[in-house]
Formats: sequence, structure tokens, C-alpha cells
Amino acid sequence: MQTMLNRKLTVPDTLKKNGIHILGDFYQCQDGHEELFDARLLEKFCEKTIFDAGLTQVGKLFHQFPNAGVTGVILLAESHLAIHTWPEKNYLTLDVFVCNIGRDNTLKARKVYETFKNLFNPQEVNHQEISRE
Amino acid sequence: MQTMLNRKLTVPDTLKKNGIHILGDFYQCQDGHEELFDARLLEKFCEKTIFDAGLTQVGKLFHQFPNAGVTGVILLAESHLAIHTWPEKNYLTLDVFVCNIGRDNTLKARKVYETFKNLFNPQEVNHQEISRE
Repeated sequence: MQTMLNRKLTVPDTLKKNGIHILGDFYQCQDGHEELFDARLLEKFCEKTIFDAGLTQVGKLFHQFPNAGVTGVILLAESHLAIHTWPEKNYLTLDVFVCNIGRDNTLKARKVYETFKNLFNPQEVNHQEISRE
Repeated sequence: MQTMLNRKLTVPDTLKKNGIHILGDFYQCQDGHEELFDARLLEKFCEKTIFDAGLTQVGKLFHQFPNAGVTGVILLAESHLAIHTWPEKNYLTLDVFVCNIGRDNTLKARKVYETFKNLFNPQEVNHQEISRE
């Protein structure tokens, strides 16, 4: 008699995890203070960085908190970039998530991440890379 | 003579990592096929789920790929929800990221995540929870 207990569902080969999600928490940013505060400046920087990396923007949305930080996202054909800033703490979180269906976008994602790191020059970083679709 | 070598930069107490970022990769979704395909339906579901969980939406952006999946985001006062669907694979990725400055939003984030899991009923899940600000 066939049992369903402990049945292991396998992930199809077509769903290999070739995508990459880079998560960066930037503490004690030494530079980029205007972008931490100003949604328009941050949006402009995000769009240029995505374009320069060769990723494909399909939409954007930025929100300015009054007298405070910015939260924003660039939607990509390849997934998304998301950023949240706390200028009063010189702190921000950055997500760069790219799927790799059709082509490997890993180097582009890392280029985006490094461009942000260079702008903000954090003294302390929590950096993680997670494999996804 | 003071040396700067091996100097460990400490993270201020005000930057304790109390936030939570839940990453879910849902494979072989058994339900929610209309939402996988239709940006308007998915957007409606996302907004309702955020509202029901007691999180605060500050913006939304959804993109419909022609005859394909959806990519979308809800910007929150607490950070963001992001979703990308591949209906041809019955697959999606979900991110629920909430900071916990001022209050602990962990349970709300988990409620959002579970609501999506219940809708799409995936047969295989990669689930991770990451501590952030």
C-alpha cells in the first residue's frame, strides 16, 4: 500500500534557484546625506544606477516621509530594487533582487549594490546574498 | 601608539535589529491562479491583506507583463511588501519586510505571509526570516 507520509515534493528542474537577492543594511553612512533625506534625489540616483547596470525598469514609486526618510522601489523586468532610509540614524536598508531566467543577472545586481555602497559609504554593513528563482 | 588595525565598529544600541524580513518562494501553487495572472486582482488582494493585518500602506505599484505574470509592491510606513509571479510555472516570490521602530510588527508580517500562503496553497516553499532594523 502506498503511503503519503514523508513524501518529498521535488522542485522541477525548471525552477532552479539561479536568481540572487542581495540584502544590505548600511549603518553610519558617511556620505550621501542628501539622498537619505530627499526622495527626488534618491529616485534619480536609483534610476541612473539601474540604467547603468543594464537592468530594465518597468516602474518606480517613491514616498517622502515629512521631515524624515524615504521609502522607494524600482520595479524591474528582473524583479525589484527597494530602499528605505532613516536619515536621523544615517541608516538605510537596500534590497536588490534579480531573477536569472533567460540570463544571469548576478553581476548586474552586485554592480548596483556596490554603487549604492560607494555613494553612502557606510561604516558598518550587514550584507547577505540569498539564492532565489 | 594606538592602532586602527582590526578596529571593530560597533552598532549603536538605537540600531538593534528588531525588524523582520520574511522571504517566501512558493512553488507549485495549487490555488490563486487568477491572482498569479491578473495584476488588478493581485493588487486588490495585497491591499486587503495589508489593511487586515493593521499595516499602513503609503503607496502601491503593480505591473502586468503581457500574457504573463505580475510584479508589484505595496510601500508601507513599516517598509514594503513585494511580489513577483510566474503563472506559467505556478510560482511566485513574496517579500514582507517590516521595521519594528516604535512597535513590534512581527506578528503582523507573519499574518500577511500566512494569508498569501493560504491563498496560493504552494506544494513546496522556501521560507526564510531575516532580522533587520
